[in-house]
Amino acid sequence: MGGLIWKVYMSGEIHGDWRQRISGGVAAAGLPVELFSPVTVHGDSDDCGAAIFGPEENSFWHDHKGASLNSMRASTLIAAADIIVVRFGEKYKQWNAAFDAGYAAALGKPMITLHTSELDHALKEVDAVASAVAREPRQVVQALAYVIRGDMPAGGSDALAGE
Amino acid sequence: MGGLIWKVYMSGEIHGDWRQRISGGVAAAGLPVELFSPVTVHGDSDDCGAAIFGPEENSFWHDHKGASLNSMRASTLIAAADIIVVRFGEKYKQWNAAFDAGYAAALGKPMITLHTSELDHALKEVDAVASAVAREPRQVVQALAYVIRGDMPAGGSDALAGE
Amino acid sequence: MGGLIWKVYMSGEIHGDWRQRISGGVAAAGLPVELFSPVTVHGDSDDCGAAIFGPEENSFWHDHKGASLNSMRASTLIAAADIIVVRFGEKYKQWNAAFDAGYAAALGKPMITLHTSELDHALKEVDAVASAVAREPRQVVQALAYVIRGDMPAGGSDALAGE
Amino acid sequence: MGGLIWKVYMSGEIHGDWRQRISGGVAAAGLPVELFSPVTVHGDSDDCGAAIFGPEENSFWHDHKGASLNSMRASTLIAAADIIVVRFGEKYKQWNAAFDAGYAAALGKPMITLHTSELDHALKEVDAVASAVAREPRQVVQALAYVIRGDMPAGGSDALAGE
Amino acid sequence: MGGLIWKVYMSGEIHGDWRQRISGGVAAAGLPVELFSPVTVHGDSDDCGAAIFGPEENSFWHDHKGASLNSMRASTLIAAADIIVVRFGEKYKQWNAAFDAGYAAALGKPMITLHTSELDHALKEVDAVASAVAREPRQVVQALAYVIRGDMPAGGSDALAGE
Amino acid sequence: MGGLIWKVYMSGEIHGDWRQRISGGVAAAGLPVELFSPVTVHGDSDDCGAAIFGPEENSFWHDHKGASLNSMRASTLIAAADIIVVRFGEKYKQWNAAFDAGYAAALGKPMITLHTSELDHALKEVDAVASAVAREPRQVVQALAYVIRGDMPAGGSDALAGE
Amino acid sequence: MGGLIWKVYMSGEIHGDWRQRISGGVAAAGLPVELFSPVTVHGDSDDCGAAIFGPEENSFWHDHKGASLNSMRASTLIAAADIIVVRFGEKYKQWNAAFDAGYAAALGKPMITLHTSELDHALKEVDAVASAVAREPRQVVQALAYVIRGDMPAGGSDALAGE
Amino acid sequence: MGGLIWKVYMSGEIHGDWRQRISGGVAAAGLPVELFSPVTVHGDSDDCGAAIFGPEENSFWHDHKGASLNSMRASTLIAAADIIVVRFGEKYKQWNAAFDAGYAAALGKPMITLHTSELDHALKEVDAVASAVAREPRQVVQALAYVIRGDMPAGGSDALAGE
Repeated sequence: MGGLIWKVYMSGEIHGDWRQRISGGVAAAGLPVELFSPVTVHGDSDDCGAAIFGPEENSFWHDHKGASLNSMRASTLIAAADIIVVRFGEKYKQWNAAFDAGYAAALGKPMITLHTSELDHALKEVDAVASAVAREPRQVVQALAYVIRGDMPAGGSDALAGE
Repeated sequence: MGGLIWKVYMSGEIHGDWRQRISGGVAAAGLPVELFSPVTVHGDSDDCGAAIFGPEENSFWHDHKGASLNSMRASTLIAAADIIVVRFGEKYKQWNAAFDAGYAAALGKPMITLHTSELDHALKEVDAVASAVAREPRQVVQALAYVIRGDMPAGGSDALAGE
Repeated sequence: MGGLIWKVYMSGEIHGDWRQRISGGVAAAGLPVELFSPVTVHGDSDDCGAAIFGPEENSFWHDHKGASLNSMRASTLIAAADIIVVRFGEKYKQWNAAFDAGYAAALGKPMITLHTSELDHALKEVDAVASAVAREPRQVVQALAYVIRGDMPAGGSDALAGE
Repeated sequence: MGGLIWKVYMSGEIHGDWRQRISGGVAAAGLPVELFSPVTVHGDSDDCGAAIFGPEENSFWHDHKGASLNSMRASTLIAAADIIVVRFGEKYKQWNAAFDAGYAAALGKPMITLHTSELDHALKEVDAVASAVAREPRQVVQALAYVIRGDMPAGGSDALAGE
Repeated sequence: MGGLIWKVYMSGEIHGDWRQRISGGVAAAGLPVELFSPVTVHGDSDDCGAAIFGPEENSFWHDHKGASLNSMRASTLIAAADIIVVRFGEKYKQWNAAFDAGYAAALGKPMITLHTSELDHALKEVDAVASAVAREPRQVVQALAYVIRGDMPAGGSDALAGE
Repeated sequence: MGGLIWKVYMSGEIHGDWRQRISGGVAAAGLPVELFSPVTVHGDSDDCGAAIFGPEENSFWHDHKGASLNSMRASTLIAAADIIVVRFGEKYKQWNAAFDAGYAAALGKPMITLHTSELDHALKEVDAVASAVAREPRQVVQALAYVIRGDMPAGGSDALAGE
Repeated sequence: MGGLIWKVYMSGEIHGDWRQRISGGVAAAGLPVELFSPVTVHGDSDDCGAAIFGPEENSFWHDHKGASLNSMRASTLIAAADIIVVRFGEKYKQWNAAFDAGYAAALGKPMITLHTSELDHALKEVDAVASAVAREPRQVVQALAYVIRGDMPAGGSDALAGE
Repeated sequence: MGGLIWKVYMSGEIHGDWRQRISGGVAAAGLPVELFSPVTVHGDSDDCGAAIFGPEENSFWHDHKGASLNSMRASTLIAAADIIVVRFGEKYKQWNAAFDAGYAAALGKPMITLHTSELDHALKEVDAVASAVAREPRQVVQALAYVIRGDMPAGGSDALAGE
């Protein structure tokens, strides 16, 4: 079977260890996957624009300069991705994550969302265009393993998920 | 000057009178604009799927059936729109609005966001791809009047905004 | 709210009265919808090519000449459509209907499938990319009424469906 | 002459040895081809969704969860393919295969169908957009050898087809 | 059935009465068709550039200026067309016609070619991507009547073709 | 011949009477053309953003807010246009005009540039992708008359150009 | 400067040594170019379809089956190409070459045509969308050397062209 | 994190050392970036067409032949690029740079402009669609380092910029 390397962009919540868990699971399973992310250092993603191009008195433009750099990264990597995973957490508005989900959907990218059931109702339109709704990073890895290589999860599937 | 009718899709918050204020302002100014919206009756947008296609025991699939209908409407109208206006309010997650913003951005649609300055930081990546950030519906009408017909706002501009 | 006329292409089974029932329901509800179909006279869709361009000894090429004309119609109307409805019946292979569904999906057209639950398993991948799965033509009309105009089905909904 | 590796997606019937015969023939001929397929373990393609994301009481949603994963794979690989081969067998509805054919056609991918002459009439619209209709896997290999490398089939062509 | 007006671009040979015969047939049949053509006055299509923008000493640039104007017309009208009809005659190279055919094919426009059987071999790759090969303008009208309205040709079909 | 209304966007220099001369010529010739332009009131195009959304201390952001509104207009109208006319004058940098030319070129829009021969060398890459280079507004009108209706310029052509 | 490998498709005349001369020149200059062509064995390109898929009594369908295979190759390679070179010779209709030119133009591929000045008038619309018109294969190599690497032709340029 | 190589096209001013400074900074930082440029030898970019394809008496066509070759390079490399950097200098019209900026914008490529504040007003519409406005090559390198690898500029950042 062919040698495609699948590109997966992991959008959304920049706290918690969900990206590491997916990354670990992908490595443990030996999947032909390249993982991409936004810049996940919160302060840097806020201040990058001003740090590089100079300070702004008005916080709106301070934010604007940083956000424009973040958008360069996100739009390029989403367009290059085969699959997008979007994580929504309990805290914060996370409009960014939903924006990325819409962006990916308009480009026809298959999407897996990752969130607890408490958020199901608020995310119903996002989930309606997703191909799968995962509760745990382990399930994202299992879904990638199936989609890419046809692997079914082992009993308990702990080995596969690298946890 | 040519006779283009501009299609404008108003996404986001389904409470408050912001759509009425834009609609009133557009009418008062006689702008060649057709306005489109999602279904704004909250209960209907939740229950439409089950009401038409039958009930679901599991609330996830109840939501899924309704949200899929809402997505048919949104994706068609955003694709048909020349401009998208996205309103973010103080309450609720409003991931829907951010999803629509991302969807429109990926299609290259010019976007105006509408929200208070309290939300500026949380919306910085969305605003970074928007062409304008409005605080009041009146400003959206003024922007449409300028973009479509070259009109500058009158002193106070209350007449234009139809308020 | 704006004056978009929605174009709906009804693909699939050419027997039964399902197209008439949708057409009647759309008219009864006064929906701003233009309905399109393949040529539904079975013999004509088989023989059109040979009748116009001359007979073929080999039945394969007889079929090919007719099918090519049918494809001109289908590809043009699906590309022009806002929504596609695809009906699968109990009889025949109906590969045509599934082909149209795939064609519409690749173009990003929202789709409603229409079939009995007996066919659910065989159609699971088609239904997975559809926005809704209807069992009755009445439900297609109700879905259009909701998507286009925000109408919820009345109790029993018989009036709306024009039956 | 240049070093393009041709990507070929083999859609359709998951029983029989047709994929192995094409794969063997491609290898025997040393063609620069990467072959891709759906998951061909029937039970896994039915149950993958529930196995990964949890069981569903309703068989419709059980199917839906699995089919959505299968669609992620198919849509990605068809979009990446240079050529699609679609096999239709005697048994089952195989709407999946026709759906993939339509999906590929809308993306402008050249297609070879593979089926017996008994199915010619039922498949006439699908064949009308195909570039070739093969009866045997050997012919698919010969067509690839010609299209990619300009090879004409040897007398009998058994050596080439690796049979 | 819906009210689509079909746009048909008639490319190729600028001599003979084939466009008039199609136009007459379309009118006689009352088909909802708008017909478009290149500029068919031979001298004007050669000299338009120099007449408008000034003479050139070098005939290559004389031709270039005229041809560029002709291309503006052709590319716009082919892109706007639903169907393209391409006529190849016995005389001249008519590379223009084949260029338009390729242009239309790359845009996915359904195509009908119109030529005598003497040209079949020379046109085999063009015909291979066409949906139909007509010998007479009458057959083009009949094909349009079937594709657009499902009409089958009457016995002899002379009435329909307006001849 | 069909009833297409051609949309023409006139980009570039906002001084002089060149738009009026084209507009007058199009009207005098009765061409089926809708003409579109940027906002040509210099002060308004500078200050619109601040006038509508509030003043900025920093002139960069003052400009940014206005320019973003102007871009909404330009990108929408260029995308809607069939043909773009771009005027370069002697004064100012007019990077706007060249930006619009590049934007239109990437969208595959046929383009006519309008400038004196003094600017030929500086504009050679822009002209290289244009379909015609006009020196006078009259020639633009004549080119439209030929492209749209096949009209050749009359001797002297003053009547046509409405001057 | 970056390491892009440029893909160049050489369409048109299958007689003469023009492809060998370009290929030799590209090799001598060490250009980072991959060259692609149609199948240039005349008899094979006529008979491939029948040889693989079985004979046809009717020569039209014999041609059709072969031409469809040739089209698979051409459409894939043109779509993959960065630049297309199209050679028109004195003999034959060579509608194929013009078709490929149109196909490439609609995809926005830069094109170099290669033909004697005797054909200038007949090819004026094709040349009007080409980026260059070469008389000799050596000039095609020189153009590639300039476009890709900025090389100017040496005096006489014989060394570069490998002749 | 994945192994994407980012392609960056540096358009604009062909004088000064700004490209070398970006190139040096990218190398010093070890960024996974391939840099592309137009041909920057001024005389060659003027004369390439005539040198390869023969002289022209009329300087307009001399320019046209050269500019067409330059456009082949620019359009291919911009389409291949992930990011475009556009430098505007004090001298010359530099319409080329603005044309490339528009071309890139229409293709949705993220853009960084590089110019002094004296040019801010003249470039306001170009900057309005850019993701960042840099004053120094060092800032372009820092922006690439952040966008691609999440690096924040060091204090003074001189080491990073390789100056």
